[in-house]
Amino acid sequence: MTAPSPDRSVDGERLFATLDRSSAIGSGPKGGLARLALSDSDRDMRDQFVAWCSGDGYAVSIDATGSIFARRPGSDDGLPAVMIGSHLDTQAAGGRFDGVLGVLAGLEILRTLDDHGIGTRRPIEVVNWTNEEGARFAPPMAASRVFAGFDSVDWLHRLEDDDGIRVGDELERIGYLGTAPVGGRVPNAYFELHIEQDSLLEEHGVTVGVVTGGYASHALNCVFRGECAHTGPTEMKLRRNAMIGAAYFLAAVNDIGWDYAPVGRTSASRMVIWPNRFGILPEHAEVTVDMRHTDRAVTDEMIARTREALARAAERGRVEAEVTGEWTFGDEVFDPDLAGLVRGAAAARGVPAMDMLSIAGHDAYYVSRIAPTALVFSPCVGGITHNEAEDIPREATIDAVNVLLDAVIARANR
Amino acid sequence: MTAPSPDRSVDGERLFATLDRSSAIGSGPKGGLARLALSDSDRDMRDQFVAWCSGDGYAVSIDATGSIFARRPGSDDGLPAVMIGSHLDTQAAGGRFDGVLGVLAGLEILRTLDDHGIGTRRPIEVVNWTNEEGARFAPPMAASRVFAGFDSVDWLHRLEDDDGIRVGDELERIGYLGTAPVGGRVPNAYFELHIEQDSLLEEHGVTVGVVTGGYASHALNCVFRGECAHTGPTEMKLRRNAMIGAAYFLAAVNDIGWDYAPVGRTSASRMVIWPNRFGILPEHAEVTVDMRHTDRAVTDEMIARTREALARAAERGRVEAEVTGEWTFGDEVFDPDLAGLVRGAAAARGVPAMDMLSIAGHDAYYVSRIAPTALVFSPCVGGITHNEAEDIPREATIDAVNVLLDAVIARANR
Repeated sequence: MTAPSPDRSVDGERLFATLDRSSAIGSGPKGGLARLALSDSDRDMRDQFVAWCSGDGYAVSIDATGSIFARRPGSDDGLPAVMIGSHLDTQAAGGRFDGVLGVLAGLEILRTLDDHGIGTRRPIEVVNWTNEEGARFAPPMAASRVFAGFDSVDWLHRLEDDDGIRVGDELERIGYLGTAPVGGRVPNAYFELHIEQDSLLEEHGVTVGVVTGGYASHALNCVFRGECAHTGPTEMKLRRNAMIGAAYFLAAVNDIGWDYAPVGRTSASRMVIWPNRFGILPEHAEVTVDMRHTDRAVTDEMIARTREALARAAERGRVEAEVTGEWTFGDEVFDPDLAGLVRGAAAARGVPAMDMLSIAGHDAYYVSRIAPTALVFSPCVGGITHNEAEDIPREATIDAVNVLLDAVIARANR
Repeated sequence: MTAPSPDRSVDGERLFATLDRSSAIGSGPKGGLARLALSDSDRDMRDQFVAWCSGDGYAVSIDATGSIFARRPGSDDGLPAVMIGSHLDTQAAGGRFDGVLGVLAGLEILRTLDDHGIGTRRPIEVVNWTNEEGARFAPPMAASRVFAGFDSVDWLHRLEDDDGIRVGDELERIGYLGTAPVGGRVPNAYFELHIEQDSLLEEHGVTVGVVTGGYASHALNCVFRGECAHTGPTEMKLRRNAMIGAAYFLAAVNDIGWDYAPVGRTSASRMVIWPNRFGILPEHAEVTVDMRHTDRAVTDEMIARTREALARAAERGRVEAEVTGEWTFGDEVFDPDLAGLVRGAAAARGVPAMDMLSIAGHDAYYVSRIAPTALVFSPCVGGITHNEAEDIPREATIDAVNVLLDAVIARANR
């Protein structure tokens, strides 16, 4: 491994200037970001990112999922690239750093290599994955899923938002329906730096989290079907209220989460109801729930109990219910060799690091199935995230990016 | 009472031609109507109704709530009018006759009087009340509520739909912000013919339901306040998911309904959730629930239990909850004298009639607080209503309108 030295540290001012610029594109009312995938503000941020990369001479390519790749050549440029990435889209009321840091840290690393005239044997690519959040188009991590070969480009293009607008049409509208082939190539390594989204690093006074694995997570999309009827004259026994079926289900799913606390947890964050009007019993309700635990076997048990709860809720609500979709992620094991590079880089710089598990989903999960992957966490103030108040400590963040820089150089020279 | 005779029966063909025309304005995808209050299709239906009334020489006035009154003078025209009415707005996936029949039966009665050259001592007015359904702007029965003096015109004008559009602005936009004074006058009598919205008449082979009273009904609008957070890393004990609080509440409210079945019932048909996206715990949820029972004391008990359930749901969901609005209606007693007129008219024509209670809300409830009121039901096929499949039997409906004709003439000559 190349010995770290102060003269190749990243430019913290420049890094935070790019983060500040990002924070001004799609700002939310409470100081965060509302930059939903493929919205106008997502397009504006993409345009800014492409302008930065092209301006600094990195070759930009865009594939048919809209993911953006900025490439700095290696001395042996035919070798598979070392990739650094995350996402620039946010939640509807999201933070300024979730995903964004990972992409802009990648750009800062390329710029730092140029500043110091450092060449690498392998090319390095910085990637912005389309629709990581799943906030506008479910499911999340959609483009990295396709890149890794778990679904087709056509599947992604057909995903719809609440207004029935499709990913494919939005990619075309905002000018990011690229022509580069999707996937079909295995990076030499993939590094993702992400804010922790919890407060363990902060509590332990540690700067870098080396993620060794994740929570086994499973999501179920459930549809309830009832019948429209008047809220007044319809006797209880004749009611088939889809929203009531969903309410029984969500209450039961939350109870299941408590049964496995503090490690396990269950979530529901979204319900679609139709017609959702006063005076008429809804005939349709749809919810997505997920279950997470560090132990895959326990997650499986939680899934089984959730399916039972779905059947019971349908019975109590006198409606029909079915699982119409599901996805799983999270307990893939990250690459021990890359994790070792990160630990070593941290030690060499005297930056405190610790191993940890990830609970949230990240693009790194899908990429880890096809390429050696490292997921690296940096601190997140108070663990507040998916909230406009999300914030990061400046110096610790810069330290973490320097650790990433060193690990990337080491790998790219292998 | 004027003796009924065949030569003054209504023109069933003409009545159903107006119903057919109405069914073509704002049609839903499944053959019903989607004519929400103050929408473009509501405006088109109002324009058609005004054109019919004006074309036949009835003086049309529109008040500041947008309610439309078509007047046929009496021989003693200074006397308070006998009023016939209901509403032309529908649910988002509603039927073709709920409300519509009551207004168009009124028009048919005026036309029949003209056909036969029958004068009445008192003037007769046919009214279309604005926003009976409450499907776009809650609460329901809003204009008749203002007409009866229970709220102000300004209150009505400030009601908002889901997009934040106000009643006052929509009335102006569609050209129905009238200049006639609102209320301030007491009709001599108010007759409302409405489809039963249940199957009791059908089951008993009866054509006319004479409503003697209603179900005591009470609605609570409840808001749940939590906090946005990531669905993944947030431990169960740190979650403040507003939608989960609402789910516990709706499940409990439905259980309360069962405790009072078959007479009692509870309803919930609508939930507003924010941000309602995958991956972020919602910070806001809002539901409206209502409780109904024939006995006011029991309804009050149901309300008390619902308030307790709200507090418990907030605790289980670890969120804040409060009642932000409520309204009540339904157990006012209709006028015995008018009910007697309807029974007598039915008997004289040999049309089967029975006394019954109403469960749904109707404009007649508010008007009954200021004027003698009769609520008359005609059959509804299979009791299906607030559903696009809603239908009515043709001959029985015409018989019911003839009974209404006779009762109105009798009252208008008093």
